[in-house]
Amino acid sequence: MEHFDDALARKLEAFERLGDLEMEKLRELQSKRVQIAGGNEIGYQAASARGAYILRRGWACSYKRLRDGSRQIIDIHIPGDFLGVRSLLLRSSNYSFITLTDVEVAKVTVEALREMFQTAPKLAVAFLWAASRDEALVVEHLVSVGRRGALERTAHFLLELGARLHLIGCGTGDSYECPISQAVLSDTLGMTTIHLNRVLRQLREIGLVVFREGMVKFPDIQRAAEFTGFELGYLDHSRRS
Amino acid sequence: MEHFDDALARKLEAFERLGDLEMEKLRELQSKRVQIAGGNEIGYQAASARGAYILRRGWACSYKRLRDGSRQIIDIHIPGDFLGVRSLLLRSSNYSFITLTDVEVAKVTVEALREMFQTAPKLAVAFLWAASRDEALVVEHLVSVGRRGALERTAHFLLELGARLHLIGCGTGDSYECPISQAVLSDTLGMTTIHLNRVLRQLREIGLVVFREGMVKFPDIQRAAEFTGFELGYLDHSRRS
Repeated sequence: MEHFDDALARKLEAFERLGDLEMEKLRELQSKRVQIAGGNEIGYQAASARGAYILRRGWACSYKRLRDGSRQIIDIHIPGDFLGVRSLLLRSSNYSFITLTDVEVAKVTVEALREMFQTAPKLAVAFLWAASRDEALVVEHLVSVGRRGALERTAHFLLELGARLHLIGCGTGDSYECPISQAVLSDTLGMTTIHLNRVLRQLREIGLVVFREGMVKFPDIQRAAEFTGFELGYLDHSRRS
Repeated sequence: MEHFDDALARKLEAFERLGDLEMEKLRELQSKRVQIAGGNEIGYQAASARGAYILRRGWACSYKRLRDGSRQIIDIHIPGDFLGVRSLLLRSSNYSFITLTDVEVAKVTVEALREMFQTAPKLAVAFLWAASRDEALVVEHLVSVGRRGALERTAHFLLELGARLHLIGCGTGDSYECPISQAVLSDTLGMTTIHLNRVLRQLREIGLVVFREGMVKFPDIQRAAEFTGFELGYLDHSRRS
């Protein structure tokens, strides 16, 4: 059961049962592994950056820096996530990645994807599923930044992160280790760190979420889900029927 | 050259030259066509909605309705766009579609996608490219709502729409027909119609964008692109190298 340390395989298996051929192809696809220390850029906001990565271990985030110097974090990435499939398939990447912890990534080329889809077409639908899921996450962030209040937005994001981690076998569903700094979290949620601090204190006081010493805990996850209107549906964490 | 009235084929060809096999498969995929009048829902925000569509003619938009009754428009859709690949591949759709004009859609099943990728794997990479491009659009909207001012955001959106239309052979690049109402546009941009009205007047007065009587015109598109920081890169409109 080697794939239990392969977060991508684990994620794709939530969509489709993978056979020996698919597992072998996923192993091949991830054979060029690179270790990168925390706090480093992966790839560039440049037309020449044609590389994409699969995050195998550790945390990263994707962001876009605007002309005025401000940045908008697009998403937080955890093991099993693609980094920059967009920059691989689109001619140019429109944003950057930075590692939040030490990570291991596997470098992927468009040729390797082509070859893999040819010999294991089952993976083509699974990859399209994963890309759709990534898009659904960005859609939720758009809704959050556009329409949700600060408390709701923060709790929603932390619930979503917990559900994503649980899918790849990290955390218990009710609690998880979370190495994100408050600066990164506040950029992700589109608020100042001072405001975020106040929001986290309020969430703790009303017993919805406790984020302290690198751990996120939901004392009553059902209540937190109701409070934020969190639906697991868009992450499709129900197993294949 | 039948594919010149097939917006999807035209769009995919920006990424990859398609042969007879691929064109035949795309035709098959789009054989179940349905006409829907303007102002109607397509699909539901429900777990049972497993259908996806390819928009062949006309305009639509996708939106999410929040519990407080407000709605966030996710994107405006034009011919060649997928509607609800997410709802097809994810167990449940997290948003709804509404037609903005009379449309023709082709209904697509996950089985048809599987079959197509098996016999024409070249299309698998092309579809993954198109999904990445869709995600890049949502990312830009996230950045817009989170970080861009009202003038910049509005002009950026109208430039982007023009570039997308030009890719499928509509409009001249500098101008295009735009059947979107101000109510829809204001919801898309996350502002009130009164605010949007003022913004559109300002954009017209400074000579950046004129949106009048269903036509969008850029008197000096270069200046408009500079003003908004619009980069064509993320739409990948450069032809294959």
